[in-house]
Amino acid sequence: MTGDLLIRSVRPWPNLPGAPLVDVLCEGGHVAAFAPDLDPPPAVPVVDGRGGVLLPAFTDAHAHLDSTRLGLPFRPHSAGAGLADLIENDRRNWRSAEASVAQRATYTLARTIAGGATHVRSHAQVDVDSGLEKLEGVLAAREEHRGRAHVEVVAFPQCGILREKGTAELLEAALRAGADLVGGLDPAGYDRDPVGHLDVVFGLAEKHQRGVDVHLHDGGTLGAFQVELICERVRALGMQGQATVSHAFALSTVDGERQRELVELLAEHDIAVTTVAPGVREPLPLRELRRAGVRVGLGQDGIRDYWSPYGNGDMLDRAWQLAYRNGFRRDDLVEMCVDIATRGGAAVMGRTLGLTEGSPADLVVVPGDTVTAAVMDRAPRTLVVHAGRVVAAEGEIV
Amino acid sequence: MTGDLLIRSVRPWPNLPGAPLVDVLCEGGHVAAFAPDLDPPPAVPVVDGRGGVLLPAFTDAHAHLDSTRLGLPFRPHSAGAGLADLIENDRRNWRSAEASVAQRATYTLARTIAGGATHVRSHAQVDVDSGLEKLEGVLAAREEHRGRAHVEVVAFPQCGILREKGTAELLEAALRAGADLVGGLDPAGYDRDPVGHLDVVFGLAEKHQRGVDVHLHDGGTLGAFQVELICERVRALGMQGQATVSHAFALSTVDGERQRELVELLAEHDIAVTTVAPGVREPLPLRELRRAGVRVGLGQDGIRDYWSPYGNGDMLDRAWQLAYRNGFRRDDLVEMCVDIATRGGAAVMGRTLGLTEGSPADLVVVPGDTVTAAVMDRAPRTLVVHAGRVVAAEGEIV
Repeated sequence: MTGDLLIRSVRPWPNLPGAPLVDVLCEGGHVAAFAPDLDPPPAVPVVDGRGGVLLPAFTDAHAHLDSTRLGLPFRPHSAGAGLADLIENDRRNWRSAEASVAQRATYTLARTIAGGATHVRSHAQVDVDSGLEKLEGVLAAREEHRGRAHVEVVAFPQCGILREKGTAELLEAALRAGADLVGGLDPAGYDRDPVGHLDVVFGLAEKHQRGVDVHLHDGGTLGAFQVELICERVRALGMQGQATVSHAFALSTVDGERQRELVELLAEHDIAVTTVAPGVREPLPLRELRRAGVRVGLGQDGIRDYWSPYGNGDMLDRAWQLAYRNGFRRDDLVEMCVDIATRGGAAVMGRTLGLTEGSPADLVVVPGDTVTAAVMDRAPRTLVVHAGRVVAAEGEIV
Repeated sequence: MTGDLLIRSVRPWPNLPGAPLVDVLCEGGHVAAFAPDLDPPPAVPVVDGRGGVLLPAFTDAHAHLDSTRLGLPFRPHSAGAGLADLIENDRRNWRSAEASVAQRATYTLARTIAGGATHVRSHAQVDVDSGLEKLEGVLAAREEHRGRAHVEVVAFPQCGILREKGTAELLEAALRAGADLVGGLDPAGYDRDPVGHLDVVFGLAEKHQRGVDVHLHDGGTLGAFQVELICERVRALGMQGQATVSHAFALSTVDGERQRELVELLAEHDIAVTTVAPGVREPLPLRELRRAGVRVGLGQDGIRDYWSPYGNGDMLDRAWQLAYRNGFRRDDLVEMCVDIATRGGAAVMGRTLGLTEGSPADLVVVPGDTVTAAVMDRAPRTLVVHAGRVVAAEGEIV
């Protein structure tokens, strides 16, 4: 039956030393049982986890599948510094890629799934230059991998909303064309009108009953002000649980007291936060956010594109990056990063993943002595399972 | 003849797009010629670079081969925060490892060579608890890999010099037993007497005519003061070119004017600096240091030991880490990190590597479109060559 599977010989997290290997039975796309030496029901496929660590599948909670050049000839980075330069550089170059947006997004989504992520929230740029072309490419990639991953798409105004006439209309057209959420971008710092920008974003969200996911690079008090504006709109529209602030650099660039206020505000409005574990910007206060009950997800951001040469589709590598960047050495803290990269991101997408009976059978098996060792080794994934079906093995999709 | 080799089909850095594949002839352990379609002299071995990027071999300029547990069962991190806790934790646990220091150091050095490093400077802890046991283990690893890599060993007072009676004598015994350099550790912040500590270090260096390599985690004005003390001693003893400050967090934790002064002081005394690309501490001012002519090397620090779960022996991965942590996107800056990880570290060790005729035939071939792409991909090394001899291929030593 669809979604039935027996996975032999894995060590579910927390894989305590000396704990016996168990088998995992999946039925109808959900985990039905964990036990040693399970007998497979008739006709149920059996796969071997080879003693690997069993985790919930990864979630890439912040991707840009439309911009990737992964798998194509490498191009030297050609942008100046600063967001405006990066935006302009992408606009100058994206049409000259050797493959279509759909082909590029499909390839990178395949690599992401092969790395163990079966939930992905991808932004798709919507602007007057590219119209809906990038969105359509990401939707095509989603369709191609429909049986392998659950993908949400954000209609993302990468070039602002108010700076170029017609963008708001394109965002609405994107929602009609299949985008799931409304995006936003630095309402003050880039689009220069925080209220005007957010009124469009939340206006579309209300009209079409969609969630929102706002890129907020603005830091310090200006960023904090915009977090407040977002909270006000979430409250007014009853959108608790439906909004995400991506990057949220404001949280790590205000003083301790203000940070506590912002964390409480996010928790009170059930607004999620995503990070991409940046190399230079100060890390988010992960422990404080989680302690307050804020959903925190991890994403890959753009992958080898006109914005940046970094990224490879591997969310376990990104979990390593999050741990490294936070200086975490203790196993419980490294495991917290894995939790953010798996269950945390899924919660950002409104999904519940886990390793208990009844959990969705979205699972990944990775070689390693322990969860922390698996993060440090970053070995190719032994198995990736989505809805009880093997979708990747030995680092390649099937 | 020893050190003769023909490497077919590589693209030497800078591998400009469209540049033809060339062959590299090594004679007597040095690069003799670069040209397309070279005819191998009689009896010279021929290996295939398969179109990969040719770089100078990597240098791990700051290793701790004595503490590694790479390849052994993973142990959860058991230390508290802070240097004293980490030191105490290691002392409690190191003797219970499943393999000897020599075995562990040999394994990790093999992984380091397989990753493309043929020059390594390793610290070896010398203290009243372990005596010379750790040093002897590292010396044994060096001997085991003598034909594969050039290894320098630092007699390293990991537990301070003045805090435990007998350490200075042990350091001197270490030099007699085969250590190449005298180490030091936070003369003020940890050992509590900067002048007393450095007098021992430089006293031994003068007496035995050795170089010094001082771990300096102390930051801010206290760290800056100790950089000055080191410079004074280098000048007094005429040890220009013979001293290294490792970590050197002081450089990134003082104001801009003071930073400039320190960089100039280091340049004036030809004192080298090494970094391990830490995840949390502020990166060193790499461009300023190099512009001033300061030799800068990159190292792996401890690898999966009682200090930290991070590290894997792969200096290309570490070069990625250095680039990522500095937010470098431009190819010239990523390539600067590769230069630090190859030629830079070799210069710290007093060696000149390069890709010109006459350079030592210490080379690595790595798959990738360009140097930056190779850093991002971090694929297993196709070939590693030391003194004109293949010492690793396809990610494994030979």
